Amino acid sequence: MIQFQCDYSEGAHPDILRLLSDTNFVQQPGYGEDPVCCSAARTIRALCEAPDADVHFMVGGTPCNLTVIAAALRPYQGVISADTGHINVHESGAIEATGHKVLSVPSSDGKVTAEQVERLYRAHWDDSTHQHMVQPKMVYISNPTEIGTVYTRSELTALSGVCRKNGLYLYMDGARLGYGLTSRGCDLDLPSIAALCDAFYIGGTKQGALLGEALVITSDALKPDFRYMIKRQGGLLAKGWLIGRQFEVLLHDGLYFSLSRHANRMAEKIADACRRRGLSFLIDSPTNQQFPILPDSLCKRLSEKYSFAYWARVDETHSAVRFCTSWATREEAVDELCSDILSL
Amino acid sequence: MIQFQCDYSEGAHPDILRLLSDTNFVQQPGYGEDPVCCSAARTIRALCEAPDADVHFMVGGTPCNLTVIAAALRPYQGVISADTGHINVHESGAIEATGHKVLSVPSSDGKVTAEQVERLYRAHWDDSTHQHMVQPKMVYISNPTEIGTVYTRSELTALSGVCRKNGLYLYMDGARLGYGLTSRGCDLDLPSIAALCDAFYIGGTKQGALLGEALVITSDALKPDFRYMIKRQGGLLAKGWLIGRQFEVLLHDGLYFSLSRHANRMAEKIADACRRRGLSFLIDSPTNQQFPILPDSLCKRLSEKYSFAYWARVDETHSAVRFCTSWATREEAVDELCSDILSL
Amino acid sequence: MIQFQCDYSEGAHPDILRLLSDTNFVQQPGYGEDPVCCSAARTIRALCEAPDADVHFMVGGTPCNLTVIAAALRPYQGVISADTGHINVHESGAIEATGHKVLSVPSSDGKVTAEQVERLYRAHWDDSTHQHMVQPKMVYISNPTEIGTVYTRSELTALSGVCRKNGLYLYMDGARLGYGLTSRGCDLDLPSIAALCDAFYIGGTKQGALLGEALVITSDALKPDFRYMIKRQGGLLAKGWLIGRQFEVLLHDGLYFSLSRHANRMAEKIADACRRRGLSFLIDSPTNQQFPILPDSLCKRLSEKYSFAYWARVDETHSAVRFCTSWATREEAVDELCSDILSL
Amino acid sequence: MIQFQCDYSEGAHPDILRLLSDTNFVQQPGYGEDPVCCSAARTIRALCEAPDADVHFMVGGTPCNLTVIAAALRPYQGVISADTGHINVHESGAIEATGHKVLSVPSSDGKVTAEQVERLYRAHWDDSTHQHMVQPKMVYISNPTEIGTVYTRSELTALSGVCRKNGLYLYMDGARLGYGLTSRGCDLDLPSIAALCDAFYIGGTKQGALLGEALVITSDALKPDFRYMIKRQGGLLAKGWLIGRQFEVLLHDGLYFSLSRHANRMAEKIADACRRRGLSFLIDSPTNQQFPILPDSLCKRLSEKYSFAYWARVDETHSAVRFCTSWATREEAVDELCSDILSL
Repeated sequence: MIQFQCDYSEGAHPDILRLLSDTNFVQQPGYGEDPVCCSAARTIRALCEAPDADVHFMVGGTPCNLTVIAAALRPYQGVISADTGHINVHESGAIEATGHKVLSVPSSDGKVTAEQVERLYRAHWDDSTHQHMVQPKMVYISNPTEIGTVYTRSELTALSGVCRKNGLYLYMDGARLGYGLTSRGCDLDLPSIAALCDAFYIGGTKQGALLGEALVITSDALKPDFRYMIKRQGGLLAKGWLIGRQFEVLLHDGLYFSLSRHANRMAEKIADACRRRGLSFLIDSPTNQQFPILPDSLCKRLSEKYSFAYWARVDETHSAVRFCTSWATREEAVDELCSDILSL
Repeated sequence: MIQFQCDYSEGAHPDILRLLSDTNFVQQPGYGEDPVCCSAARTIRALCEAPDADVHFMVGGTPCNLTVIAAALRPYQGVISADTGHINVHESGAIEATGHKVLSVPSSDGKVTAEQVERLYRAHWDDSTHQHMVQPKMVYISNPTEIGTVYTRSELTALSGVCRKNGLYLYMDGARLGYGLTSRGCDLDLPSIAALCDAFYIGGTKQGALLGEALVITSDALKPDFRYMIKRQGGLLAKGWLIGRQFEVLLHDGLYFSLSRHANRMAEKIADACRRRGLSFLIDSPTNQQFPILPDSLCKRLSEKYSFAYWARVDETHSAVRFCTSWATREEAVDELCSDILSL
Repeated sequence: MIQFQCDYSEGAHPDILRLLSDTNFVQQPGYGEDPVCCSAARTIRALCEAPDADVHFMVGGTPCNLTVIAAALRPYQGVISADTGHINVHESGAIEATGHKVLSVPSSDGKVTAEQVERLYRAHWDDSTHQHMVQPKMVYISNPTEIGTVYTRSELTALSGVCRKNGLYLYMDGARLGYGLTSRGCDLDLPSIAALCDAFYIGGTKQGALLGEALVITSDALKPDFRYMIKRQGGLLAKGWLIGRQFEVLLHDGLYFSLSRHANRMAEKIADACRRRGLSFLIDSPTNQQFPILPDSLCKRLSEKYSFAYWARVDETHSAVRFCTSWATREEAVDELCSDILSL
Repeated sequence: MIQFQCDYSEGAHPDILRLLSDTNFVQQPGYGEDPVCCSAARTIRALCEAPDADVHFMVGGTPCNLTVIAAALRPYQGVISADTGHINVHESGAIEATGHKVLSVPSSDGKVTAEQVERLYRAHWDDSTHQHMVQPKMVYISNPTEIGTVYTRSELTALSGVCRKNGLYLYMDGARLGYGLTSRGCDLDLPSIAALCDAFYIGGTKQGALLGEALVITSDALKPDFRYMIKRQGGLLAKGWLIGRQFEVLLHDGLYFSLSRHANRMAEKIADACRRRGLSFLIDSPTNQQFPILPDSLCKRLSEKYSFAYWARVDETHSAVRFCTSWATREEAVDELCSDILSL
């Protein structure tokens, strides 16, 4: 069975494993206060052109999200998210576990708009009973979104503007940030994201690392005592340098981005094959997740040989599925899939 | 200014104050473990035909809701509610503060349907990633709803059926239960509610008491250690008998229901005046809250003399408002309002 | 059975019930935003000589404690308390329920000393692993303490000093504040408490009110959005004026203090009788709680006629008990008890 | 600088890195539902002679502790721990963050006794105000303890007995379990621990793995929906097989135990040198942590060349320190340290 199920089914880029082996017996201080994390953080600050940013190496996406949100919000405050947002549907209530409501807004493309934020903010403060309602204080976005779309610079600028005007934090979940930043037509880069967001993370788990995400905090208000928060939420790794080391490798010489480009190219090949076959898509995604709509018969045939995610029923005879590529996707596997899409 | 703003702007039925005075120096044990609460609980069990029910006298509606939900759910479980539900919009995140997600379903009439519950339940368990999602375990309904509508026996029976089939608790917020049970056409009563729900509360605060609600727990699974939960959530009143005493008065000789009928009759008078004036309504409510749609000019004129709640803008020149009556509403005030509705 | 069990076994001072009756049908806005609460708050600010203080009328002591603590602390911060402190032993984990650790220090007299606070603070910050430990941020004291002792002005000044030096909040639980302020030798008053503490509450429940406490917040840092916090924790009373009204009565013309003095005088009579009988005390208390050590035989005899609290076994034949007086204690009952103590 | 600071300053046993490399591109399903974890769990069940145990691979010790405790306790319940217990002092309030109180008992040797548990349990249930107190429901022990001591079979049997008699869960934190099980005189083994505890974890992070602990749940009551809990608390690793793979290596052919024995032998060498030098110890530890009491002068000299933990001041001229060995400690480094202890 060939996997197009997700982007975390393999280990890590071989350079990472090699360096972990080579430095295995170098003794390091614990909990991320080591020279390796220090140096990786310095690299990230440089890439982001954010010399004052705090960088924390986190174990995974959910710990990252819940720790940032719990650190940023006062108890009665909530976080705005697209209804499709990861924190709203796929974290088993991890945000609510920290005592905060996710204020969801409807979204068909996975994105939150500046207008939605402004409207929700107004609706709260214009209501005479606002002290009986959760106070909006943060906007959570994922980029790319859970369905592969990406924010444009103008969209992100508008969001950032409405957040700053209204005293809301803007936080970007970048589990697949590399796939987004290297996607066709993307006009965002790390420095602009660092400038427009209060915090965001550069995903590692889905982007070539064994595990780990690099959280970048640019807002001074979110910096104090953040390591206490990580520990309190159970996310402080004893061997923190493990994650620092991996980002050191990934961010060296643009490896992170070239791996991302590879995944996007593989995804584009699959999309092309679908288009040539005359299939339409649930959503137009420029990144490593593709959501073609398959006749059920084709879907069944493909699923005998490939593993991919069933997404949604579209009509009586068609279903949307997700093909997911990654830094590790082999081109031969993609070519085989494409050929099967066209011939089956 | 004459108040039609809400149903908790006056004190308590005079009989309550009289009895509180007469028994003021009778010494009672603390925290609701006294003969007064005992006897009031017995009365409630009898009225509900639920001899094995546990009865707890709670300080208010929000403490009641959050304590029941926190007691009933495991940490990763959530409670289904109409998007208009009090726990979803007007409790400042009190449910999330206990670590639980409110799983909201859209509702135009304030009610949750059995079909919605079944669908949401299915959607959870049919999803292969269900362990990444909040597990639905309880259905919260308010009856009457926040917009004055009431459940029919057949609706509640269907809800109860789908809940029991799927192992969900059914909990009814009865902040205005009396207004609902005495509304025209209502085919529910306390015994049927006790039989169909796992827990519900009989509202006092909005129904003639100074403060307090009587929580009735019929499900054995929700009974153990409930007093620990009340204390832990900060809701255990030192002089618990204060609330027991009030329910003793309200439930004696049907006072609770005759007070409710009065409020409904007053509301009906206002609705009639509106209809005679040719006004339409946001929703058809048989209870003590009425939501007529007023021309802005009339709205402005009335607001000089009466206090009522602005509800929603309907179009460029019309707004929906809420007139709320209660056990304490004076008929002369209503007549004056009606005459002004017709003449202004 | 005559009650010396606790100080909340009767209703309220008759003047309160009378005023509640007289104003029963005056319509008030909800949730404590009414002229009554406004005026009572003004009175309290004046009595405390704290013109900028915020005053909130709370339902009870535990809601007061947990809301203040949850509002003041960041998630990883804790509150220092005597091991005998109410929040440490008798609130069923209500503080932990808001996510905060109670950092207890040993106490034989129910009080926390400035030295203990300084030591615990130092121990935290001098430890290289402090980010793995709960950060101390508040000191909780009760005055009078749970065992009847009171802080002197010099003790409170020292505590306040160490708190301010180290950026800790000082919060006083004043469930029985009146009994403390009117106790023999007490050199504290409301203005000095308001000046030395960041927040404290003036107890009502145990001091002549049906229910309710008046929370006074003097620290600007604790003021913002406090009403959101009250609502979120389930403590916002619909008819907030109920509590405001009671404090209006209690604080008028020094009633609060004269009721307190009465209770202390009654307690002193009991203590005198015990001393005359040659009994010793668990602790020397100048307030309404007395802890004599009784021979078990006497204890048994008295318990046939009086209800009082068993406190602790002292030796094979002696037990410490608690006699508790209150604003409502009848002098004849006390005289009877005294005579029985001397004669049985 | 040679590290004796802690037991997590190196990476992983080379066999682990080798296998991770060799299997790097084998595609695995996510979140620990893969054949690798399955097989490692099977091995663990066999070693524990617990065919029905559930095994979960966790990211670290704190996530393990907080997830087990949050899953096991009802909201108003607490967990008993030695005051020196990791959950009581070194997890930044992670347990309280889940809403639960740690009920600490004093301990000079890091252990909790059956008598302490029985006494605390009795004190709770014998108190008439027990509903105002946190209900004890679990006992947390660490084995070895935070100061290197180990439970004997008879101690653990007694603890288990008192827990079962009183309906308390017994949970063992085994961050250094291997060091304990291979220590001189230890009469416990995995099957006896599995039989006596309701849950425990086999530590990986400090025992030769890059990261990860193997949680073993033997009590049926703790099993349902545990994966929901892991996800909700942010501890579900995307590439769960990463941890399974490491335990596969460690538990093969007794590697886990031989690595542990090495660390204990290294620690014994250091202890011997200290004894030969005439030094005494803070506590007698048979495991990989040694706590000699050093003259300050010697302490200073050693610290120029070795990194170790300052533990506590003993008197004006002596301090207790901790030397920590591990699976990765080089014998030459130990020999050098021993020679310096004897000669400096």
